[in-house]
Amino acid sequence: MKVSIGQDIRDMRAVWMENGIVRMMDQRILPQRFSTVDLRDHLQVAESIRNMTVRGAPSIGAAAAYGMALASLNGVDLASAATELKAARPTANDLFYAVDKMLEEISEGKDPVIAAEAYSNDIVERCRSIGEHGHVLIEEGSKVMTHCNAGALATVDVGTALAPMRRAWENGTEFFVYVSETRPRMQGMRLTAWELLNEGIPHAIIPDGAYGHFMRQGVDMVITGADRVAPNGDFANKIGTFEKAVLAKEMDIPFYVAAPVSTFDFGIERGEDIPIEHRGPEEVTVIEGSRVAPVGSQAFNPAFDVTPGTMVTGFITEIGILTPGEIDRMRGETVDE
Amino acid sequence: MKVSIGQDIRDMRAVWMENGIVRMMDQRILPQRFSTVDLRDHLQVAESIRNMTVRGAPSIGAAAAYGMALASLNGVDLASAATELKAARPTANDLFYAVDKMLEEISEGKDPVIAAEAYSNDIVERCRSIGEHGHVLIEEGSKVMTHCNAGALATVDVGTALAPMRRAWENGTEFFVYVSETRPRMQGMRLTAWELLNEGIPHAIIPDGAYGHFMRQGVDMVITGADRVAPNGDFANKIGTFEKAVLAKEMDIPFYVAAPVSTFDFGIERGEDIPIEHRGPEEVTVIEGSRVAPVGSQAFNPAFDVTPGTMVTGFITEIGILTPGEIDRMRGETVDE
Repeated sequence: MKVSIGQDIRDMRAVWMENGIVRMMDQRILPQRFSTVDLRDHLQVAESIRNMTVRGAPSIGAAAAYGMALASLNGVDLASAATELKAARPTANDLFYAVDKMLEEISEGKDPVIAAEAYSNDIVERCRSIGEHGHVLIEEGSKVMTHCNAGALATVDVGTALAPMRRAWENGTEFFVYVSETRPRMQGMRLTAWELLNEGIPHAIIPDGAYGHFMRQGVDMVITGADRVAPNGDFANKIGTFEKAVLAKEMDIPFYVAAPVSTFDFGIERGEDIPIEHRGPEEVTVIEGSRVAPVGSQAFNPAFDVTPGTMVTGFITEIGILTPGEIDRMRGETVDE
Repeated sequence: MKVSIGQDIRDMRAVWMENGIVRMMDQRILPQRFSTVDLRDHLQVAESIRNMTVRGAPSIGAAAAYGMALASLNGVDLASAATELKAARPTANDLFYAVDKMLEEISEGKDPVIAAEAYSNDIVERCRSIGEHGHVLIEEGSKVMTHCNAGALATVDVGTALAPMRRAWENGTEFFVYVSETRPRMQGMRLTAWELLNEGIPHAIIPDGAYGHFMRQGVDMVITGADRVAPNGDFANKIGTFEKAVLAKEMDIPFYVAAPVSTFDFGIERGEDIPIEHRGPEEVTVIEGSRVAPVGSQAFNPAFDVTPGTMVTGFITEIGILTPGEIDRMRGETVDE
């Protein structure tokens, strides 16, 4: 992804490995400060996933793959390392998918660093394909809405929801993006706006509660990412996604979900089977270091919600734009190799 | 309203007049700090409305009535004072209603301070009646959702949306309130939670984007306030209200609007006729003094949205629970005296 640091423009990834060290952008402090962190063992990687230094289902998967490579390099028991990495966050499927894939490939004798690098490169290629399949949806003058950050930061590079936008922009299509700020952690305002700004794509940040208001003024489509997709098309994504889908349905606005097939979980049946992470209430009540809520009031902080597959116009994947029915038919097939 | 200040519990109003001075709680800094401000002329009152020291349609109306009283005491031209006060904010009907009522009463020779006091007391009585009519909706074990602050702070005392809750709580009914935080100014998290905490009513703050998630887990009703109601039932209220109404419709949850008839505007036809205030983008991009959005990204900040009357189960008013059709039939009648 294009990153502007002062006068400098660099091409960087959200997470990568060099000289036996895993490095990642610190997504907790963007866009105010740009900094990278160095991780030397898989426990540091697990902590970086837990504390959201790295976030976004595919980037979490890549970080976990690199974490398994570190565990292997460090001579750590791989089964334990796998358990520790998988415990970092519960909702995104990519985390489990990546760890299991690394276990399998290392047991087959593959070089762990090369395997992790291949996993990460594979995500980026899948995202590029998502962009290829999805950009045709965005026409000259389109108004597009997205939620949270399903950009390059969330997927090593390129993005899922942002992949069709990046590709359309490269093609010279002019369009406008509404970015919902995405409380409580503000991934929309902090990260998606920063990515769009770095690319030069016109956009505006709106409060989460203003989504419906702007939809009514005319929006052509919503594109979000997904953290886990069930075979019936139900999917978990950042809290607030379900609301956007209901609003889109009410106003007949196409609602697309952009996700690689590594996000699909064929081991479950439906949305109710996806565990929803509840994070600490202080993410809601304390903002920029200040307690905003009255002391004594509790807050609830579900990190994700589940949207019915029936509300999805199409899933933009690396193999094409799929309906929920087409996803279900993929079950039992080998979908990723 | 009951106000806990340290160990001290006081019974206070959001705005009042004593010794020729208008006093109000500073709602910009609650709940972290409790402070009142003293205003000595109508221009200071207009500024207090503009900068949201006082907010909420009925409290704005009362402040404006007191502002007219100050103008009269200070020998200011009343027509100019009326224009200056009305220019403070564009959406809430009560502001215009209160100023016009004061102009009329002063021209009839009424004492301006007594007239303003009567206006303010009248709001509180109307709110008490809203509580009487509305509390029967809340049953033992009910889960109620509200948005923004339509409590005592917004209405001098008692509240509109919170009036039925206060009355039900006094009756010994146990229920639970979900308070959406209400970005960007956090009136839900700051003010509604503080009022409920002062009363001892069980509640939890949720991010605006989590409303749909919790609705799906079982909610019995939504009660919001309104800043202006058109004769067909379309109403303007804090940004995010429309989204809640769409979600309630999708999930068959009753949606009530609590408002005194001073909020009804019989001079317009429908929601499209209500001017929507757009406030500065820095309310969205700067939080607790820190710039959170990337420098260079714009933000849109509509303060209100409009919800179709067809989505409203009932309007809880001081004269009973009305359907949109019943409001329309009130047009042309004398509704408030």
